Amino acid sequence: MSLVLDPAAQDLLFREARTANTFTDEPVTDEQVQAIYDLVKYGPTSMNQSPLRVTLVRSPEARERLVRHLSEGNQKKTAAAPLVAILSADNEFHEELPQLFPHFEGAKAMFEGAGRDAREKNAALNAALQAAYFIIGVRAAGLAAGPMTGVDFAGIQKEFLDDDHTPFVVVNIGKPGPDAWFPRSPRLAYDDVVTTV
Amino acid sequence: MSLVLDPAAQDLLFREARTANTFTDEPVTDEQVQAIYDLVKYGPTSMNQSPLRVTLVRSPEARERLVRHLSEGNQKKTAAAPLVAILSADNEFHEELPQLFPHFEGAKAMFEGAGRDAREKNAALNAALQAAYFIIGVRAAGLAAGPMTGVDFAGIQKEFLDDDHTPFVVVNIGKPGPDAWFPRSPRLAYDDVVTTV
Repeated sequence: MSLVLDPAAQDLLFREARTANTFTDEPVTDEQVQAIYDLVKYGPTSMNQSPLRVTLVRSPEARERLVRHLSEGNQKKTAAAPLVAILSADNEFHEELPQLFPHFEGAKAMFEGAGRDAREKNAALNAALQAAYFIIGVRAAGLAAGPMTGVDFAGIQKEFLDDDHTPFVVVNIGKPGPDAWFPRSPRLAYDDVVTTV
Repeated sequence: MSLVLDPAAQDLLFREARTANTFTDEPVTDEQVQAIYDLVKYGPTSMNQSPLRVTLVRSPEARERLVRHLSEGNQKKTAAAPLVAILSADNEFHEELPQLFPHFEGAKAMFEGAGRDAREKNAALNAALQAAYFIIGVRAAGLAAGPMTGVDFAGIQKEFLDDDHTPFVVVNIGKPGPDAWFPRSPRLAYDDVVTTV
Protein backbone atom coordinates (compact mmCIF):
# COMPACT_ATOMS: atom_id res chain seq x y z
CA MET A 1 0.00 0.00 0.00
CA SER A 2 2.67 2.43 1.06
CA LEU A 3 4.82 1.74 -2.00
CA VAL A 4 4.18 3.45 -5.31
CA LEU A 5 6.50 1.10 -7.24
CA ASP A 6 4.49 -1.27 -9.41
CA PRO A 7 4.08 -4.69 -7.68
CA ALA A 8 5.51 -6.46 -10.76
CA ALA A 9 8.64 -4.34 -10.43
CA GLN A 10 8.82 -5.10 -6.70
CA ASP A 11 8.74 -8.79 -7.54
CA LEU A 12 11.29 -8.49 -10.34
CA LEU A 13 13.82 -6.57 -8.27
CA PHE A 14 13.31 -7.88 -4.73
CA ARG A 15 10.48 -10.25 -3.85
CA GLU A 16 10.89 -12.95 -6.48
CA ALA A 17 14.49 -12.20 -7.50
CA ARG A 18 16.96 -14.67 -6.03
CA THR A 19 20.67 -15.37 -5.98
CA ALA A 20 21.15 -17.96 -8.73
CA ASN A 21 23.51 -20.92 -8.53
CA THR A 22 22.73 -22.42 -11.94
CA PHE A 23 22.18 -20.74 -15.30
CA THR A 24 20.89 -21.59 -18.77
CA ASP A 25 23.26 -21.41 -21.76
CA GLU A 26 21.65 -18.20 -23.06
CA PRO A 27 24.41 -15.59 -23.52
CA VAL A 28 24.46 -12.24 -21.74
CA THR A 29 25.31 -9.66 -24.38
CA ASP A 30 27.38 -6.49 -24.13
CA GLU A 31 24.20 -4.62 -25.06
CA GLN A 32 22.52 -5.95 -21.94
CA VAL A 33 25.45 -4.94 -19.75
CA GLN A 34 25.45 -1.49 -21.32
CA ALA A 35 21.71 -1.12 -20.66
CA ILE A 36 22.27 -2.17 -17.03
CA TYR A 37 25.07 0.36 -16.64
CA ASP A 38 23.08 3.13 -18.32
CA LEU A 39 20.36 2.61 -15.71
CA VAL A 40 22.34 2.11 -12.52
CA LYS A 41 24.99 4.74 -13.16
CA TYR A 42 22.42 7.20 -11.80
CA GLY A 43 22.40 5.64 -8.33
CA PRO A 44 23.79 8.16 -5.82
CA THR A 45 27.32 8.10 -4.35
CA SER A 46 29.09 10.55 -2.02
CA MET A 47 30.08 13.59 -4.06
CA ASN A 48 29.30 11.53 -7.17
CA GLN A 49 32.55 9.62 -6.59
CA SER A 50 31.35 6.73 -8.78
CA PRO A 51 34.32 4.47 -7.89
CA LEU A 52 32.86 1.16 -9.15
CA ARG A 53 34.73 -0.55 -11.96
CA VAL A 54 33.54 -3.71 -13.72
CA THR A 55 35.69 -6.38 -15.34
CA LEU A 56 33.69 -8.74 -17.56
CA VAL A 57 35.38 -12.13 -17.70
CA ARG A 58 34.42 -13.47 -21.12
CA SER A 59 37.34 -15.41 -22.62
CA PRO A 60 37.64 -19.09 -21.61
CA GLU A 61 41.25 -18.48 -20.69
CA ALA A 62 40.38 -15.60 -18.35
CA ARG A 63 37.47 -17.54 -16.88
CA GLU A 64 39.83 -20.37 -16.01
CA ARG A 65 42.24 -17.98 -14.33
CA LEU A 66 39.39 -16.48 -12.31
CA VAL A 67 37.87 -19.77 -11.20
CA ARG A 68 41.11 -20.84 -9.55
CA HIS A 69 40.69 -18.02 -7.02
CA LEU A 70 37.20 -19.04 -5.93
CA SER A 71 36.22 -21.37 -3.11
CA GLU A 72 35.59 -24.92 -4.27
CA GLY A 73 31.83 -24.61 -3.88
CA ASN A 74 31.76 -21.62 -6.24
CA GLN A 75 34.04 -22.95 -9.00
CA LYS A 76 31.71 -25.12 -11.05
CA LYS A 77 28.87 -22.62 -11.31
CA THR A 78 31.24 -19.78 -12.14
CA ALA A 79 32.96 -21.80 -14.86
CA ALA A 80 29.54 -22.42 -16.43
CA ALA A 81 27.85 -19.01 -15.96
CA PRO A 82 27.07 -17.09 -19.18
CA LEU A 83 28.90 -14.04 -17.84
CA VAL A 84 31.02 -13.27 -14.78
CA ALA A 85 31.84 -9.75 -13.58
CA ILE A 86 34.56 -8.76 -11.13
CA LEU A 87 33.45 -5.63 -9.26
CA SER A 88 36.26 -3.45 -7.95
CA ALA A 89 36.71 -0.07 -6.26
CA ASP A 90 38.95 2.53 -7.91
CA ASN A 91 40.99 3.99 -5.06
CA GLU A 92 42.12 6.83 -7.33
CA PHE A 93 38.53 7.85 -8.16
CA HIS A 94 39.38 11.44 -7.28
CA GLU A 95 41.19 11.79 -10.62
CA GLU A 96 37.74 11.84 -12.26
CA LEU A 97 36.14 14.38 -9.90
CA PRO A 98 36.81 17.41 -12.12
CA GLN A 99 34.50 15.66 -14.62
CA LEU A 100 32.09 14.09 -12.10
CA PHE A 101 31.70 16.92 -9.57
CA PRO A 102 32.43 20.03 -11.64
CA HIS A 103 30.71 22.54 -9.34
CA PHE A 104 33.29 21.98 -6.58
CA GLU A 105 36.66 22.75 -8.10
CA GLY A 106 38.62 21.64 -5.04
CA ALA A 107 37.23 18.10 -4.91
CA LYS A 108 40.19 16.34 -6.50
CA ALA A 109 42.74 18.24 -4.39
CA MET A 110 40.71 17.53 -1.26
CA PHE A 111 41.02 13.78 -1.77
CA GLU A 112 44.68 14.11 -2.75
CA GLY A 113 45.28 15.82 0.56
CA ALA A 114 43.16 13.31 2.49
CA GLY A 115 45.52 10.52 1.44
CA ARG A 116 45.20 7.00 0.16
CA ASP A 117 43.65 5.49 3.31
CA ALA A 118 40.80 8.00 3.25
CA ARG A 119 40.31 7.39 -0.48
CA GLU A 120 40.22 3.61 0.01
CA LYS A 121 37.56 4.02 2.69
CA ASN A 122 35.46 6.29 0.46
CA ALA A 123 35.94 4.01 -2.53
CA ALA A 124 34.98 0.90 -0.55
CA LEU A 125 31.72 2.40 0.72
CA ASN A 126 30.64 3.99 -2.52
CA ALA A 127 31.63 1.09 -4.77
CA ALA A 128 29.60 -1.18 -2.46
CA LEU A 129 26.56 1.08 -2.90
CA GLN A 130 27.11 0.86 -6.65
CA ALA A 131 27.51 -2.94 -6.49
CA ALA A 132 24.03 -3.11 -4.98
CA TYR A 133 22.68 -0.85 -7.75
CA PHE A 134 24.40 -3.14 -10.26
CA ILE A 135 22.74 -6.26 -8.80
CA ILE A 136 19.37 -4.46 -9.00
CA GLY A 137 20.21 -3.54 -12.61
CA VAL A 138 20.98 -7.15 -13.52
CA ARG A 139 17.54 -8.04 -12.22
CA ALA A 140 16.01 -5.12 -14.12
CA ALA A 141 17.37 -6.78 -17.27
CA GLY A 142 15.41 -9.94 -16.45
CA LEU A 143 18.59 -11.75 -15.45
CA ALA A 144 19.67 -13.37 -12.22
CA ALA A 145 22.77 -12.33 -10.30
CA GLY A 146 24.91 -14.66 -8.24
CA PRO A 147 27.15 -12.40 -6.14
CA MET A 148 30.03 -14.08 -4.29
CA THR A 149 32.40 -12.78 -1.62
CA GLY A 150 34.05 -16.01 -0.48
CA VAL A 151 36.86 -15.40 -2.88
CA ASP A 152 40.66 -14.91 -2.90
CA PHE A 153 40.46 -11.21 -3.71
CA ALA A 154 44.20 -10.62 -3.33
CA GLY A 155 44.80 -13.29 -5.97
CA ILE A 156 42.16 -11.81 -8.27
CA GLN A 157 43.62 -8.32 -7.88
CA LYS A 158 47.06 -9.62 -8.84
CA GLU A 159 45.68 -11.62 -11.76
CA PHE A 160 43.31 -9.06 -13.31
CA LEU A 161 43.78 -5.59 -11.79
CA ASP A 162 46.42 -3.29 -10.34
CA ASP A 163 47.23 -1.79 -6.95
CA ASP A 164 44.71 1.01 -7.44
CA HIS A 165 41.72 -1.28 -7.93
CA THR A 166 40.40 -3.38 -5.05
CA PRO A 167 38.04 -6.21 -6.06
CA PHE A 168 35.32 -6.97 -3.53
CA VAL A 169 32.52 -8.95 -5.22
CA VAL A 170 32.39 -11.42 -8.12
CA VAL A 171 28.98 -11.75 -9.77
CA ASN A 172 27.71 -14.56 -11.97
CA ILE A 173 25.06 -13.32 -14.41
CA GLY A 174 22.55 -15.16 -16.59
CA LYS A 175 19.08 -16.61 -16.92
CA PRO A 176 18.45 -18.94 -13.97
CA GLY A 177 18.77 -22.65 -14.79
CA PRO A 178 17.20 -25.73 -13.18
CA ASP A 179 17.14 -25.73 -9.36
CA ALA A 180 18.80 -22.33 -9.46
CA TRP A 181 18.36 -21.51 -5.78
CA PHE A 182 17.92 -22.76 -2.26
CA PRO A 183 14.72 -21.98 -0.32
CA ARG A 184 14.69 -18.32 0.76
CA SER A 185 16.49 -17.79 4.07
CA PRO A 186 14.62 -15.88 6.82
CA ARG A 187 15.00 -12.12 7.17
CA LEU A 188 15.16 -10.10 10.38
CA ALA A 189 11.91 -8.69 11.75
CA TYR A 190 11.38 -4.95 11.34
CA ASP A 191 11.67 -4.36 15.10
CA ASP A 192 15.05 -6.11 15.19
CA VAL A 193 16.43 -3.72 12.57
CA VAL A 194 14.66 -0.38 13.02
CA THR A 195 14.63 1.63 16.25
CA THR A 196 13.24 5.13 16.82
CA VAL A 197 14.70 7.90 18.95
CA MET B 1 15.26 -2.36 -24.99
CA SER B 2 17.51 -4.71 -23.09
CA LEU B 3 15.76 -4.02 -19.80
CA VAL B 4 12.53 -5.77 -18.84
CA LEU B 5 11.86 -3.41 -15.92
CA ASP B 6 8.97 -1.08 -16.74
CA PRO B 7 10.25 2.36 -17.91
CA ALA B 8 8.15 4.12 -15.26
CA ALA B 9 9.90 2.03 -12.59
CA GLN B 10 13.30 2.84 -14.17
CA ASP B 11 12.44 6.52 -13.88
CA LEU B 12 11.13 6.23 -10.32
CA LEU B 13 14.18 4.37 -9.00
CA PHE B 14 17.06 5.72 -11.09
CA ARG B 15 16.51 8.05 -14.02
CA GLU B 16 14.31 10.71 -12.46
CA ALA B 17 15.07 10.00 -8.80
CA ARG B 18 17.46 12.52 -7.29
CA THR B 19 19.20 13.28 -4.03
CA ALA B 20 16.93 15.85 -2.37
CA ASN B 21 18.14 18.86 -0.40
CA THR B 22 14.72 20.31 0.46
CA PHE B 23 11.51 18.60 1.52
CA THR B 24 7.81 19.39 1.95
CA ASP B 25 6.25 19.20 5.43
CA GLU B 26 4.39 15.97 4.61
CA PRO B 27 5.29 13.42 7.31
CA VAL B 28 6.94 10.08 6.55
CA THR B 29 5.02 7.47 8.54
CA ASP B 30 6.24 4.34 10.31
CA GLU B 31 3.98 2.41 7.93
CA GLN B 32 5.98 3.76 4.98
CA VAL B 33 9.28 2.81 6.60
CA GLN B 34 7.93 -0.64 7.34
CA ALA B 35 6.82 -1.06 3.72
CA ILE B 36 10.27 0.03 2.55
CA TYR B 37 11.95 -2.46 4.88
CA ASP B 38 9.59 -5.28 3.91
CA LEU B 39 10.67 -4.78 0.29
CA VAL B 40 14.40 -4.22 0.58
CA LYS B 41 15.08 -6.81 3.27
CA TYR B 42 15.15 -9.30 0.39
CA GLY B 43 18.20 -7.72 -1.24
CA PRO B 44 21.11 -10.19 -1.12
CA THR B 45 24.02 -10.06 1.35
CA SER B 46 26.94 -12.46 1.89
CA MET B 47 25.62 -15.51 3.73
CA ASN B 48 22.47 -13.49 4.43
CA GLN B 49 24.44 -11.51 7.05
CA SER B 50 21.91 -8.65 6.95
CA PRO B 51 24.01 -6.35 9.17
CA LEU B 52 22.17 -3.07 8.40
CA ARG B 53 20.50 -1.37 11.35
CA VAL B 54 18.35 1.76 11.04
CA THR B 55 17.85 4.45 13.69
CA LEU B 56 14.92 6.76 12.89
CA VAL B 57 15.53 10.17 14.42
CA ARG B 58 12.02 11.47 15.13
CA SER B 59 11.99 13.44 18.40
CA PRO B 60 12.97 17.12 18.18
CA GLU B 61 15.47 16.57 20.99
CA ALA B 62 17.18 13.69 19.15
CA ARG B 63 17.13 15.61 15.88
CA GLU B 64 18.93 18.49 17.56
CA ARG B 65 21.58 16.14 18.96
CA LEU B 66 22.08 14.64 15.50
CA VAL B 67 22.33 17.90 13.61
CA ARG B 68 25.26 19.03 15.76
CA HIS B 69 27.36 16.23 14.24
CA LEU B 70 26.72 17.22 10.63
CA SER B 71 28.74 19.53 8.44
CA GLU B 72 27.38 23.06 8.37
CA GLY B 73 26.01 22.70 4.84
CA ASN B 74 23.92 19.69 5.90
CA GLN B 75 22.50 21.04 9.15
CA LYS B 76 19.56 23.14 8.03
CA LYS B 77 18.08 20.60 5.62
CA THR B 78 18.47 17.79 8.14
CA ALA B 79 16.82 19.81 10.89
CA ALA B 80 13.84 20.37 8.56
CA ALA B 81 13.54 16.94 6.88
CA PRO B 82 10.34 15.00 7.68
CA LEU B 83 12.42 11.98 8.71
CA VAL B 84 16.10 11.27 9.21
CA ALA B 85 17.60 7.79 9.43
CA ILE B 86 21.04 6.84 10.73
CA LEU B 87 22.24 3.72 8.93
CA SER B 88 24.73 1.59 10.84
CA ALA B 89 26.49 -1.77 10.50
CA ASP B 90 26.07 -4.33 13.28
CA ASN B 91 29.57 -5.75 13.80
CA GLU B 92 28.12 -8.59 15.87
CA PHE B 93 25.76 -9.67 13.08
CA HIS B 94 26.97 -13.24 13.46
CA GLU B 95 24.83 -13.61 16.59
CA GLU B 96 21.79 -13.71 14.27
CA LEU B 97 23.19 -16.24 11.79
CA PRO B 98 21.57 -19.31 13.43
CA GLN B 99 18.27 -17.61 12.52
CA LEU B 100 19.39 -16.06 9.20
CA PHE B 101 21.51 -18.87 7.73
CA PRO B 102 20.04 -21.99 9.35
CA HIS B 103 21.34 -24.50 6.80
CA PHE B 104 24.97 -23.89 7.83
CA GLU B 105 25.17 -24.62 11.53
CA GLY B 106 28.77 -23.46 11.88
CA ALA B 107 28.19 -19.93 10.53
CA LYS B 108 28.11 -18.13 13.88
CA ALA B 109 31.16 -19.98 15.21
CA MET B 110 33.02 -19.27 11.97
CA PHE B 111 32.66 -15.51 12.44
CA GLU B 112 33.46 -15.80 16.15
CA GLY B 113 36.69 -17.47 15.18
CA ALA B 114 37.40 -14.98 12.39
CA GLY B 115 37.52 -12.16 14.95
CA ARG B 116 36.18 -8.66 15.21
CA ASP B 117 38.25 -7.15 12.38
CA ALA B 118 36.93 -9.69 9.90
CA ARG B 119 33.40 -9.13 11.14
CA GLU B 120 33.73 -5.35 10.80
CA LYS B 121 34.90 -5.78 7.22
CA ASN B 122 31.99 -8.09 6.39
CA ALA B 123 29.51 -5.82 8.16
CA ALA B 124 30.79 -2.70 6.37
CA LEU B 125 30.46 -4.24 2.90
CA ASN B 126 27.10 -5.88 3.43
CA ALA B 127 25.53 -2.99 5.32
CA ALA B 128 26.60 -0.73 2.44
CA LEU B 129 24.87 -3.04 -0.06
CA GLN B 130 21.77 -2.84 2.14
CA ALA B 131 22.04 0.96 2.39
CA ALA B 132 21.78 1.09 -1.39
CA TYR B 133 18.76 -1.22 -1.32
CA PHE B 134 17.27 1.08 1.34
CA ILE B 135 17.76 4.17 -0.82
CA ILE B 136 16.07 2.33 -3.70
CA GLY B 137 13.26 1.39 -1.31
CA VAL B 138 12.75 5.01 -0.25
CA ARG B 139 12.32 5.86 -3.91
CA ALA B 140 9.97 2.89 -4.38
CA ALA B 141 7.77 4.54 -1.74
CA GLY B 142 7.55 7.67 -3.89
CA LEU B 143 9.87 9.55 -1.54
CA ALA B 144 13.22 11.21 -2.07
CA ALA B 145 16.35 10.22 -0.16
CA GLY B 146 19.13 12.62 0.78
CA PRO B 147 22.05 10.41 1.83
CA MET B 148 24.99 12.15 3.53
CA THR B 149 28.46 10.92 4.45
CA GLY B 150 30.20 14.20 5.36
CA VAL B 151 29.34 13.59 8.97
CA ASP B 152 31.06 13.15 12.36
CA PHE B 153 30.29 9.45 12.57
CA ALA B 154 32.34 8.92 15.73
CA GLY B 155 30.23 11.57 17.45
CA ILE B 156 27.01 10.03 16.16
CA GLN B 157 28.07 6.59 17.31
CA LYS B 158 28.76 7.90 20.81
CA GLU B 159 25.51 9.87 20.88
CA PHE B 160 23.09 7.27 19.51
CA LEU B 161 24.69 3.82 19.25
CA ASP B 162 27.23 1.57 20.98
CA ASP B 163 30.65 0.10 20.17
CA ASP B 164 29.11 -2.73 18.17
CA HIS B 165 27.27 -0.49 15.71
CA THR B 166 29.20 1.61 13.19
CA PRO B 167 27.19 4.40 11.55
CA PHE B 168 28.19 5.13 7.94
CA VAL B 169 25.38 7.07 6.22
CA VAL B 170 22.70 9.52 7.40
CA VAL B 171 19.65 9.76 5.13
CA ASN B 172 17.08 12.53 4.98
CA ILE B 173 13.72 11.22 3.75
CA GLY B 174 10.61 13.01 2.49
CA LYS B 175 8.72 14.41 -0.46
CA PRO B 176 11.02 16.76 -2.39
CA GLY B 177 10.38 20.44 -1.77
CA PRO B 178 11.06 23.54 -3.92
CA ASP B 179 14.42 23.58 -5.71
CA ALA B 180 15.13 20.18 -4.19
CA TRP B 181 18.21 19.40 -6.24
CA PHE B 182 21.13 20.66 -8.26
CA PRO B 183 21.41 19.84 -11.98
CA ARG B 184 22.40 16.20 -12.45
CA SER B 185 26.18 15.73 -12.38
CA PRO B 186 27.80 13.82 -15.25
CA ARG B 187 28.34 10.07 -15.06
CA LEU B 188 31.31 8.10 -16.36
CA ALA B 189 31.06 6.65 -19.86
CA TYR B 190 30.52 2.90 -20.13
CA ASP B 191 33.99 2.33 -21.56
CA ASP B 192 35.59 4.14 -18.62
CA VAL B 193 33.93 1.76 -16.17
CA VAL B 194 33.57 -1.60 -17.91
CA THR B 195 36.46 -3.59 -19.40
CA THR B 196 36.40 -7.09 -20.86
CA VAL B 197 39.01 -9.82 -20.53
